[in-house]
Amino acid sequence: MARKSTTRDRLVRTATELFSRQGYGQTGVNEIMQQARATSGSFYHFFPAKEDLLLAVLDHVGETLHGEVLGPAAEGTEDPIERVFAVLAYYRRYLVDTNFALGSPMGNLAAELSESHPQVRSKVSELFAAWTAEVEAFLGEAGDRLPPDLDNTGLAEFVLSTMEGAVMQARARRSLAPFDASVAQLRRYFDLLRGEDVKADEVPASLVSIPRKAPQNADWRSW
Amino acid sequence: MARKSTTRDRLVRTATELFSRQGYGQTGVNEIMQQARATSGSFYHFFPAKEDLLLAVLDHVGETLHGEVLGPAAEGTEDPIERVFAVLAYYRRYLVDTNFALGSPMGNLAAELSESHPQVRSKVSELFAAWTAEVEAFLGEAGDRLPPDLDNTGLAEFVLSTMEGAVMQARARRSLAPFDASVAQLRRYFDLLRGEDVKADEVPASLVSIPRKAPQNADWRSW
Repeated sequence: MARKSTTRDRLVRTATELFSRQGYGQTGVNEIMQQARATSGSFYHFFPAKEDLLLAVLDHVGETLHGEVLGPAAEGTEDPIERVFAVLAYYRRYLVDTNFALGSPMGNLAAELSESHPQVRSKVSELFAAWTAEVEAFLGEAGDRLPPDLDNTGLAEFVLSTMEGAVMQARARRSLAPFDASVAQLRRYFDLLRGEDVKADEVPASLVSIPRKAPQNADWRSW
Repeated sequence: MARKSTTRDRLVRTATELFSRQGYGQTGVNEIMQQARATSGSFYHFFPAKEDLLLAVLDHVGETLHGEVLGPAAEGTEDPIERVFAVLAYYRRYLVDTNFALGSPMGNLAAELSESHPQVRSKVSELFAAWTAEVEAFLGEAGDRLPPDLDNTGLAEFVLSTMEGAVMQARARRSLAPFDASVAQLRRYFDLLRGEDVKADEVPASLVSIPRKAPQNADWRSW
């Protein structure tokens, strides 16, 4: 099916990037129009108010969540537990590819707008629920490799906490170190849940301690 | 020592709350002056630009971090590992007391301003470092109750990731459930690190699974 409009798409994609980069409140409509090469006539045709564009941005983030983030991560590996870490690896690559500029679009908008924009809060809440539902499904597929009493919903929310908090720290510090450290601890938690933790005296020290400055192109599988 | 100025304090405290509640970009100088009962003359005397006030807010958050958050949490218990969870309990109480309106001031400003304001990014980075340094000290005091190969710096960063990500989810969902679930998973990780994980068939089911809807006044020690 041919797309009817590309101007609207450009406005939404440009706004998604600008809101993620510098916040919603600090991004002006003129800046969005200019970068998206759109006239004010077409802007206000699609979006009578700036908040309408914001809601379209959240819909866009939701539409790409499965297709561009969680889906491809799942396709990269058959192992459901590795799929959880492949999702986290996506955000690591995104930090590197954007030089820490954008972070997690849903997280940034949640932090800035949860209180002041009830409609935004509600949509972000749905994005978080969609994200954790997919991760929870991976955990369910892991079956008896994880303890039977495990709260999979709660663990999926914990994985999301780890991702959002680790991305936030990496952006503020312009360093992958806190991100890699957080994921390494989460990995150890999963290993312990599976009864597979390695002991320090059983493996070479190089495999036990996570380097504080991981190379930017480090393979995430080393987590 | 008597304080010279209370107008400046009121401006900083009011701005801290407004920036946390509705973001920096969406908060106008007039709104701050009005709520702080300050004239524009006194505002611009103390803060020639809005960004000067923002930097003062970050200093204020840093000054209260030990005295109002991490210090009191540490005083509440002698057990260094419980001190980590007492810090998390502080943020839980803050979510309840503010009805989810404010979240983590340093986290919100990090998410909104890390890319656009290098000075803010640098100060938030220092706040994160101060926060994790205190938590890392608690972990150090735990001594041989934690594995000798544990990366205490990395674990402290993981605790911060958990806090920031859990607060973000709780605000967006207006629910303590994702916060409590994240902390319960972190608690289980600590238990496993200490070789003290409880098995589902050894304790009543009511203690194993975390209720999805924890009462707002639940005692955090039940984590």
